[in-house]
Amino acid sequence: MTSSAAPFNILDALAAWARRFEKTLDSMLTPEADVPPRLAEAMRYAVLDGGKRIRPFIVTRGCELCGGTFEQAAPAAVALECVHAFSLVHDDLPAMDNDDLRRGRPTCHKAFGEAIAILAGDGLLALAFEILATRIPDPARAVQAVAELARGTGWAGMIAGQTNDMLGEGQTPDLALTRQIHLQKTARLFEAAGRLGAICAGAHTPLGDALADYGRHLGRAFQIADDLLDVTGTADQMGKAVAKDADAGKQTYPAAVGVTASREAAQEAALSSVRALDVFGPSADDLRALARFVVERRK
Amino acid sequence: MTSSAAPFNILDALAAWARRFEKTLDSMLTPEADVPPRLAEAMRYAVLDGGKRIRPFIVTRGCELCGGTFEQAAPAAVALECVHAFSLVHDDLPAMDNDDLRRGRPTCHKAFGEAIAILAGDGLLALAFEILATRIPDPARAVQAVAELARGTGWAGMIAGQTNDMLGEGQTPDLALTRQIHLQKTARLFEAAGRLGAICAGAHTPLGDALADYGRHLGRAFQIADDLLDVTGTADQMGKAVAKDADAGKQTYPAAVGVTASREAAQEAALSSVRALDVFGPSADDLRALARFVVERRK
Repeated sequence: MTSSAAPFNILDALAAWARRFEKTLDSMLTPEADVPPRLAEAMRYAVLDGGKRIRPFIVTRGCELCGGTFEQAAPAAVALECVHAFSLVHDDLPAMDNDDLRRGRPTCHKAFGEAIAILAGDGLLALAFEILATRIPDPARAVQAVAELARGTGWAGMIAGQTNDMLGEGQTPDLALTRQIHLQKTARLFEAAGRLGAICAGAHTPLGDALADYGRHLGRAFQIADDLLDVTGTADQMGKAVAKDADAGKQTYPAAVGVTASREAAQEAALSSVRALDVFGPSADDLRALARFVVERRK
Repeated sequence: MTSSAAPFNILDALAAWARRFEKTLDSMLTPEADVPPRLAEAMRYAVLDGGKRIRPFIVTRGCELCGGTFEQAAPAAVALECVHAFSLVHDDLPAMDNDDLRRGRPTCHKAFGEAIAILAGDGLLALAFEILATRIPDPARAVQAVAELARGTGWAGMIAGQTNDMLGEGQTPDLALTRQIHLQKTARLFEAAGRLGAICAGAHTPLGDALADYGRHLGRAFQIADDLLDVTGTADQMGKAVAKDADAGKQTYPAAVGVTASREAAQEAALSSVRALDVFGPSADDLRALARFVVERRK
């Protein structure tokens, strides 16, 4: 006897959720009269481009798992996506990773020029904090959210990771350094996603810790999978250039330990992320499915 | 009969205050273990370089005028100086104003390379918000401070001004456009400096409005004086290249209305800033002296 329910598909769930989220994103990225149109255009180009939206999904679902609502989580979800988009715009610059293509479209500096791209990235970072401070009604939660996002982004977080990523180019592949880069460059913002969900719900610390652990391990899994896709994917699948890491002499898991051990490490990290959700029971099944998707994705 | 008291000198007052402020700045810019040393070095290079510190002076003195203390204002003063330093680092980049010299030293990207300079600017912007959120004890004041600084910095504030400054290059000099650029690029952060002082003291709105008006007019005066110094100053005095605005076809007051009318406009703006301080009486005399200094300075 088979169940009459269709099997749960995380991509369908993400897509359904994203229809709602994209409207929120669009609305919070609507400029007022004083914003230069060209700047607003570049900022919106960088954010409203059909990314996978994994980080804001974690924020809003994490908030709901803690008893909060989508609406309560929306400012933090949008702010986090603004920070993510800012990091892509600046990382793609000629002085950084020098990428021409992102999600199948010209990168921001290719479409708008370098000066506007630098300013658009800066503008998205500032906007993220403006959104947290002006759209989260409870001051204590707002200030916690700012602290969490600023630390996750800053000189000991994502920006540290990008720095170590740049400085590690051309050096002998090293697993410890690669792990450190992954933790800072990617896992730290995923961790913030989990923690922000709990903060927006006003949840107790243990729930925030569980979601932060989930996010951190998921972020590690995501970045190892990303390293692998640069080796095994095609540009068509990915919507961006591939095999660039090896050319640039980047610190990556495949370079440090090979493809097979990298696949195992990604699976292990995904498993750790799933385990962190135990406290939430079956209601967190979509976040568990997300962990599987992250390591099995083809783009 | 002459008074036995030495005449008040705003430069001496600024220097005495700065000895205290530089220690606070150094301390809040001390990195923890996870911060890449090269990144921390570049961020500290950009901030701890003997700038005039006019903006943080306004924050702390504004706070004291509202009944608060230097210590209460210190996080906002440091955060604002971090934002100012971030803006100089990014504005100096080759894709922006392409400056090699700043305050008599190589600009950040000349000293550390473009990639690290971009990341150092990003790091300073994130750090500003981390400092506000983690070092202002009262959540309501902290969140107001974040909102004020984010708006002053963001897509309708300083970053808008820099965008319009770039986009205005090579266009016919236009007074209305120049005023708009000055208001956004410079006056908006000076305005935030005044408002932040009041916020840190928990002052009532009218005092915050007065300090914000003072800051906005002072910022206008400062930027007109800056335009004039690019025409009339020498590189030795300024510690940076001069006569660059005309070469780049920038929108400036001297280009729009000539040197004499620009001097008058700077004096008028300084006078407006002084008038905004009426509510504070003689205790604001140093801020009045600062307004005179800003339009009479030679660098």
